[in-house]
Formats: sequence, structure tokens, C-alpha cells
Amino acid sequence: MFIRNAWYIAAWADELGQKPLARRICDEPVVLFRDQAGRAAALVDRCCHRSAPLSKGELVPAGIQCGYHGLVFDGSGRCVAVPGQAHISDSVRVRSYPLVEKNQFVWIWMGDAAAADASRIVDFPYHDDKARWPNKHDCYPIRANYMLMVDNLMDLTHLGYLHAKTVGGNPAAHVNAEMQTTRTATGIKFTRWMRDSVPPPSYVKAAGFKGRVDRWQEFEWVAPSSVLQWTGAADVGTGAYEGKREGGFQFRLFHGLTPETETSCFYFWSCANGYRQNEPEATEQLYREIAPTFVEDKDMVEAQQARLDELGEQGLVNIVSDANRVVMRRFIERLLADEKGALAAE
Amino acid sequence: MFIRNAWYIAAWADELGQKPLARRICDEPVVLFRDQAGRAAALVDRCCHRSAPLSKGELVPAGIQCGYHGLVFDGSGRCVAVPGQAHISDSVRVRSYPLVEKNQFVWIWMGDAAAADASRIVDFPYHDDKARWPNKHDCYPIRANYMLMVDNLMDLTHLGYLHAKTVGGNPAAHVNAEMQTTRTATGIKFTRWMRDSVPPPSYVKAAGFKGRVDRWQEFEWVAPSSVLQWTGAADVGTGAYEGKREGGFQFRLFHGLTPETETSCFYFWSCANGYRQNEPEATEQLYREIAPTFVEDKDMVEAQQARLDELGEQGLVNIVSDANRVVMRRFIERLLADEKGALAAE
Amino acid sequence: MFIRNAWYIAAWADELGQKPLARRICDEPVVLFRDQAGRAAALVDRCCHRSAPLSKGELVPAGIQCGYHGLVFDGSGRCVAVPGQAHISDSVRVRSYPLVEKNQFVWIWMGDAAAADASRIVDFPYHDDKARWPNKHDCYPIRANYMLMVDNLMDLTHLGYLHAKTVGGNPAAHVNAEMQTTRTATGIKFTRWMRDSVPPPSYVKAAGFKGRVDRWQEFEWVAPSSVLQWTGAADVGTGAYEGKREGGFQFRLFHGLTPETETSCFYFWSCANGYRQNEPEATEQLYREIAPTFVEDKDMVEAQQARLDELGEQGLVNIVSDANRVVMRRFIERLLADEKGALAAE
Repeated sequence: MFIRNAWYIAAWADELGQKPLARRICDEPVVLFRDQAGRAAALVDRCCHRSAPLSKGELVPAGIQCGYHGLVFDGSGRCVAVPGQAHISDSVRVRSYPLVEKNQFVWIWMGDAAAADASRIVDFPYHDDKARWPNKHDCYPIRANYMLMVDNLMDLTHLGYLHAKTVGGNPAAHVNAEMQTTRTATGIKFTRWMRDSVPPPSYVKAAGFKGRVDRWQEFEWVAPSSVLQWTGAADVGTGAYEGKREGGFQFRLFHGLTPETETSCFYFWSCANGYRQNEPEATEQLYREIAPTFVEDKDMVEAQQARLDELGEQGLVNIVSDANRVVMRRFIERLLADEKGALAAE
Repeated sequence: MFIRNAWYIAAWADELGQKPLARRICDEPVVLFRDQAGRAAALVDRCCHRSAPLSKGELVPAGIQCGYHGLVFDGSGRCVAVPGQAHISDSVRVRSYPLVEKNQFVWIWMGDAAAADASRIVDFPYHDDKARWPNKHDCYPIRANYMLMVDNLMDLTHLGYLHAKTVGGNPAAHVNAEMQTTRTATGIKFTRWMRDSVPPPSYVKAAGFKGRVDRWQEFEWVAPSSVLQWTGAADVGTGAYEGKREGGFQFRLFHGLTPETETSCFYFWSCANGYRQNEPEATEQLYREIAPTFVEDKDMVEAQQARLDELGEQGLVNIVSDANRVVMRRFIERLLADEKGALAAE
Repeated sequence: MFIRNAWYIAAWADELGQKPLARRICDEPVVLFRDQAGRAAALVDRCCHRSAPLSKGELVPAGIQCGYHGLVFDGSGRCVAVPGQAHISDSVRVRSYPLVEKNQFVWIWMGDAAAADASRIVDFPYHDDKARWPNKHDCYPIRANYMLMVDNLMDLTHLGYLHAKTVGGNPAAHVNAEMQTTRTATGIKFTRWMRDSVPPPSYVKAAGFKGRVDRWQEFEWVAPSSVLQWTGAADVGTGAYEGKREGGFQFRLFHGLTPETETSCFYFWSCANGYRQNEPEATEQLYREIAPTFVEDKDMVEAQQARLDELGEQGLVNIVSDANRVVMRRFIERLLADEKGALAAE
């Protein structure tokens, strides 16, 4: 069960080039491409003639051409050419999906097209600000329901265990971090503070700290599955806790989860270097540290999915650190119930 | 749903040698072998003792010996030896299937054995005439329903798109070819003429044409799934259109599709060189040109099958070039209905 | 359908070391490990917090620690630590399974724990007697129901066919062996004698026989799936048949089958050298001869399972050599019926 009336990331903008891109989203086969004007489009990945996947075809001036018998469809899904046939009925078309390109993402709407409101799309201007926030991105396919990755991001205590060998550090520090949670109209925000603490070696290396620091992780979850992360540290007592977070060490991460099937998803993520912006190597280094950490998450949620497939949720218990996760899940359940209610009312 | 009361190609004659051959046909496991006299036989591939596949056994003078406990079955399916047991009841047997070897093919009948009439098997004497039609053959396993490959052969407009990089040539020439279709008692025949046209480079290379040609493709589909193809070209206006097709450039293809499961089949095909019969290299060259083309067909129908599995036929539309394909499909539906009626009447 | 109220081999004792071992038994995911005191334990392989497999975690002094959020469970399944949480309810626990370590095996009980009686576990002291019976062992995963391997061991006539190229020898000798079968309280025992026979080359090589021998194979099947084998030969007429089997050539095999799923199992087997105990190379040689033979069995029962999955048992017939196999299968059916009856009575 997915929330369908929502914007999901279909692709990174730079994934759409000279060839069609096939991607299953919310369990529907979708083909993504750019028309001649460079405008991104998304159609159901199935020619309405003989069911061949359009993604096996080619991009032509008028749109996308089926690779089997040559029918051409424009970005709206209308068939604009049938070889050997002069007249084409208006009804010859394939489904198209609302698509918005913003902040290096291509966002898709899989639900009721009339309800697709582009103003509801998350803002993440940092991707476009290459001078202040040089960044790098990736997409991991994961064989687990997308909400398991959202769960993962709502409870950071896993850092001390799952990521013990990578970014983890001291489990107790993470468990005992000071936590401030706020509900928002579109999700929740929470900040974890480790004030007056010893900076981890990687922070010292990156930012040259000489002594203790005030360290923060700020997370904003926007329903259904975007998580914006802002992490950093400053010399102890220099005002970071009160809001003064310029200078020092900081980076931003974006986590976007898109359902592929009920038991698989795409994990779109980026990291933006906010501390040594003039050094491309610093951005690369940040990426190289984070990439294997997220493989650990992928690996764990896939194992978790396998057990859930078999044994379901029965007998599972919540613990103290699940607080934000539980709020998030209730929020999602409410959205699902609303969507179901709206459908029933139609 | 397969037509079961029909002859299908089980194997090329030269596939049956010193070892049993396992092949699934119409979703039944079959073992093919030759007895000591060289006579081909087909049994269900399952020992009636403990269900071991007979194809894991060995050929012995009396027939095929199960590789587990040594029971032996002759070509009729009768058990002729049980180790350590003197008496063998007549009821100890496995199912055998009618089998006819003809024109280098081994044809099998999966339906009601009483209805197996060998005179209904397609004639293709060219395979046996190695002097006039030197030929080469292959068998491709395809993960798609066998009728999708028959569809493919009934609409040649795909040549300009799917085979654009191999044998395709100019899409418009294929779309605009002059088409003559005739219904026969067992299927349909259609001829496509490209008169007074520029020969493709490969024809020029093969036959040394100096100017324009009259070019033809003659197809005969014999239900359920044999397609006999005769293709060629002659110097323009030298009488090919009126029937004089000797000399010049010509070759024959045989396409035989055998259902393996509902969503997979075997594509038995051959090519016969009718232009430079004394040059084995010309036959090899013809084979090397055609083989990758048919891989393109395999690849496309497999992608088509995947979409049909998921989305069914709903919303699909026919186009002008589907005319023969639609006639063929109706013919098949009639045969299926007849077979169902015959079963109901029993 | 498995017999659940039975002891099965979960692992070789030496498989439990510094890391948790994941193994599916009777279609349940199990994690096996040793606690700090070296005591083997088995828990359901699923953390009761978020369903992560415990086998992806680590062994810590207090038990096994989940690799996701750090919960710790002791060998009884009780949760003894939740990071960041002082109080842990007694109900926070995962299922544990009775486990007994004996004769180098770790035996598990998957059924009603109250009925787990360790005195019913098979004795095989030879594994512990490294001086008199130096031995070597292995575990083969097999994609077939465990009873197909028990069937295999109940009818040795397959040696002449399936193992013709390895240990087989003359098919007729195996078929005509003198057979003595005895029923026991827990299964059946049968002895096959080939008296006054020519020893196989491997026996001559191993034991230096100069002439004919009395050769035996003694099997004891203990329900549901242990088979104890004692095989040997002595110079003809020196009293082996009457019971004097010291000296000469002899070895012991243990065959233990553990259901993984309905259509897969684990084959735990060992071979013990009872003839050249002071030569480690003789033990290795025995192992090297037997290992590929059992791969032949694995390969055949996997093919058999595939056919049974598709065609079921219908139409199968028993032959003379099935006598012990049929007795064994009836014994099993009785146990299954008893277990079902006991459940119904609860």
C-alpha cells in the first residue's frame, strides 16, 4: 500500500539524457525521457499497440518511438505517428504522469493528476547552489519497502550498532543525545545535540577542531518520504546551540525514498559539503565516507524485509528510541486513510 | 492455452544422439531419444517408479534406463526391465507421444494420440536437398508465448524499426510494400513485392546486381506455428513478378515455434542458400546475418511478454499493418474453440 | 509436513564459533550461537523490536546483540539490554528452542518444548572416539524434501546405477545381496551380506585382501531421519557373518537429514575410518571417495523433487527393492498421524 497522491523522486535530473530511462514506480512501469525541447516527460512504459516497452525504443524529434513497429508518442502520451497509417484516432494514447523538475530532482505524481500541486514539492535549494554547497548524489536500489528506510532515518540510535565500523562512534553518545522534536504541517523536525563533546576524528580532520565542540544533527521529515539532514559542529560555547552555525564544520544530506514495488524502493541521496567548498576533493571525501554507510542501511533493511515478508509484524515491540518513528508512522497511516476516504467518496 | 492437437517441432533430427534430450513441450516434461534401431521416441520425462527424470539416465540396447534404480523403458513407454524383479506387470509404463521424423525435423503430437495424422505435417523438402538448398539451422529458447513470435512474423513492418541496425533498411520501403494475401485451408499466404527498387547492399554483395530489382518476400503460415519464407530479387522486369524466379538471388527460411510453457517457447529456424550453392561460405554468411536479427526478435517479444504478464491485453489497439496478424489470430481462436468443443463432446 | 516433535541435527558442534549461524529448520529461521560459557543456544532469527535477523548481529558477553539497534538477548531468548532504556519488560523475548550437544552434533527440537526428551537422541559415540574411529564430516544443502534422501538410503540397489561411476560396482551383486531386516522400537535395521564374494578394488587397496571375502553393510534407520551405517569385509569364512568383525576392513557412516523447507534439507554426514586408524591419510582418502558419491545422490533427489513438485505421486509404482523404504514410510506416516492427533487433543 503506497500513498499515491504524493510527489516522489523519479530520477536525478542528470539521469535523463539521450536514451529513455525505464523505472518502476509505485509498481507501475514508467518510461522517463526528455523531448526535443529538453522537457522531461513520463509515460507508462508500454506501447498501446502490442504492449512492447517504450523504453526499448528511441528518442525522435516528435517524442519517443516504439522500437517494435515505430509508433511515436509525445510527452503528453498522444500517439503522433503510426507507420503506414494516415489517420490516428485521438484515443490512441498512453498514460502520462505529472512531472516537475526542481533542485536537480525529477519529481513524479503517480496518483490523481488533478490533485498534483507542484507547490507542495519539497524545497532543497542547496543542490543548485554549487558555490556554497558543492554536492554529489547517487541512487541505491533497495529490496525493501520504502518506509523501512524512513524508519531507519527516524531512529538514529542505530548509528552506534549498524554503523559501528563506519561513521558510528560511541553508541552511548548517540543514545544519550539531547533530542528536540517539533511537529510540522507536513511531517516532523527533530534536532539532536551533543553539546560540549569530543569531536569524532573525521570532524577534527575535516575542520581542524582543537578542543571540545557543540555538535548537532537536524532532521526534517516531509511526508511521505523525504528527509532533509543538516549536521555540523562548532567550537564549544560559540553560539551554535543558540542558532549561530556559520563557519565551523557542517554538511547537508538529502534522503528521498521512492517506492518501486511493495518490497523494493529507490534511495536517492546526496551530500553537500558546507565547510571546504573550494576543495572538490573535500566533497569527494564526504561522498566516499557516506556511500558505504548507506550500503549498510540497505543491507539491513533488506534483511528486515525478508523477515517481515515471512513473519509479519506480529509480536514486535517498540522501545524508547522509537518515539519519532511512531509519530511518523501514525502520520503516514492518517494520510493513507485520507487517501482511501477520498477514493471512496468519489 | 495451447492447441494440443497439432504437430510441433520437438527437436532437430541431429539433436538426438547418444544421450537422452530433455525438453518441456506444451508444459509437459518430455525425454527424446533414439532406440538401438535409430528410431526416435518421446516419453514423459519421469520414471514411474520414484519420479526421477528419465533424461538423467542412459540409452541401453532395450531402450532408456532410469539413472536412479535401473528400470528400462522401450520407445513405446513399456517397462522392459526392473532390476531384481522377474515379473513386470503390463501396467508398468510411462506415457509415450506420437513422433514423426521428416525433413530434418522431429515432430511431436501432444494431444489425443488417436487424432495424430502424419499426413498433416508441413512439407519442407528443401532441408533434404543439400545440393540445391544448402542450409543451416538453430534453436533459440525464448521467454515468451509462442504466438508472440508468430505475431512477429505476420507483420513485417517491424523490420524497419526492430531490425534497423541489422537487415532492416528503409522503414518506408517495408511499410509501403505491395501486399497480396491469400487464405489457405491451413493458414494464410502473403507476398510482399518491392518492384523496381534499389537492392539492399547485402543483396548486391551476394548476387552482384548492377541496377534496380524486383524484390519479393513470400510467406506461408501453416497453423498453428510454422512459417515458410521465400525471399529473393531479380533484375527489374525480367519476369520474377510473373513467376520466373530462377537464378538471381533467393533464399528460404523456416520458422517453427513450439510452446514450452505458457510464457516460453522454442524457435526452430533454418536458412537455405538458393544462390551460391557451391560455396559453403555463402551459406555460413547467410546464417551469420540472420542469427543476430532473430536475437533482436527474441529480445523484443520477451519484453512484450513481461508487460503482457503484468498489464494484459487491455487498452491495446490494432493498426493497419496488423491485418494478417489479426486473420492469423482469428484462425487460431477457431482452432482452440474446435478443440475445446471436441473435448466437451467426448 | 514435517514431524516437529523430533530431534534434528541443527549443526555440527564445530560450526558454532565466534559468529552467529543462521539456518532455516522446519521452515523457521533459526540463529545458533554459543554464549560466553560455551553453551550452545538457538533462537528464532528475528529481533522482536524491528524484525531484523539476529544472525546479522554480534556475540557479546550477555548473549547475542542485534546489529540494528543493539538489543541483547540471552540463550533463553530473554531481552537483557535495550540501549537507552532502563526498564525491560519480562515479555520482551524471542522464542528459544531446546538444544542438546552430543557426539559432535548440535541437536534441536522444533516442536512442543515440554516433550523434548534428550534421552531419545541417537547415540553415535564413534565421533568422540578419535583413536578407534578417526572421522571427518560435512553438511550438504539439498533442494529436496528430506524424506527423499531417507528413501535413497533405504534402497541400496541404486548403487549400481546412480553410483556406477563412483562406488557402485556390479549392479547384480547389489540387487542380489542377502538381506536381513529387523524392526526396532525407533525404526528398522537391515543388513546386506555379500558372502564369499570378490572384494571391490578399493577394499583390496585399503585392506590388502588376498582372496574372497564376506562383505556386509549394516544400516539402522532411526526415525525420523538418522541412518547409521556400518560397512566392512573380512577374509571369507573367518566368522564375520557370525559376528566376529574385528580387524579386517570396516568403516562407519552417519547420515542425518534435517528439513530446511518442504522442498529442501541439510544432509549432515560423516565417515569414520575403522581400519587404518593411525593413518590420517586413510581417513582423508575415505572422505574423498564418499564426498562425490553423495553429490550424485543430492543431484538425483533434487531432480526427483522437481518432478514431484510438478506431477505429484500419482501413477508411481513400487518395485521389489522398495520393501524397506515402504516400511520406513509407513512408520513415518504413523508418527505424523500421532503428532496430528496429539495436537487435536490439546
